[in-house]
Amino acid sequence: MIMNTTSRNWLDSVQWDEHGLVPAVAQDSASGRVLTLAWMNREALALTVSEGRAVYWSRSRSRLWRKGEESGHVQWLDELRLDCDRDAVLLRVRQQGGIACHTGRAACFFLRLEDGTWREVDPVLQEPAAIYPRGK
Amino acid sequence: MIMNTTSRNWLDSVQWDEHGLVPAVAQDSASGRVLTLAWMNREALALTVSEGRAVYWSRSRSRLWRKGEESGHVQWLDELRLDCDRDAVLLRVRQQGGIACHTGRAACFFLRLEDGTWREVDPVLQEPAAIYPRGK
Repeated sequence: MIMNTTSRNWLDSVQWDEHGLVPAVAQDSASGRVLTLAWMNREALALTVSEGRAVYWSRSRSRLWRKGEESGHVQWLDELRLDCDRDAVLLRVRQQGGIACHTGRAACFFLRLEDGTWREVDPVLQEPAAIYPRGK
Repeated sequence: MIMNTTSRNWLDSVQWDEHGLVPAVAQDSASGRVLTLAWMNREALALTVSEGRAVYWSRSRSRLWRKGEESGHVQWLDELRLDCDRDAVLLRVRQQGGIACHTGRAACFFLRLEDGTWREVDPVLQEPAAIYPRGK
């Protein structure tokens, strides 16, 4: 289905990869924390703008994924940016619930390299079982 | 050439894509600004850590690219993080010269969507001709 919103010029100037995707970095508008890196296809990016919330393309599930649709951890869009090569986007967002990661952490980048080992350095704020009571 | 540094366990736990790459987000340690999104293969990531500076894989030139090798705009590594799916990395860096983008801007994400148009919202701090006197 081609949506009306996907015919806009600003979408045409995005350089989609061979799978029709671009990487999308979500950054917390207030704290500046980098929350997630996910992927968008043309429809996801159009919906992100029209709905004012992050909508990604789930590569593992091969479907649109409205961030927070199960968890309630919606990413509300403040600003959308494109990079110089037009093949990556940056979302400045307000992270509902203060939790971006499905593990219950504030952000997905919680593994830090220390002495040759990836260490979990950020706390779990809410147990996944409480976030996804019916299973993920 | 397989380097010694590429045999480390922490590199094995990274989920490389079908091209052997992961997206790498560089963020300014001091300002929190998202500077660039580039790509790394296993060797680039190993070298980033061993040399303490961002080393990417240039997809357009099919070679390792030590960020700043021509421009002097080196990204010095403060911290390396991996995300929950282990398929994206975040570098916290000190951006030498305060310019990350080849266009002479502080960061690559200088196009902001405004009323359906991508607008250049960040100033050019140094003309590319001055950054790359012999051509890029």
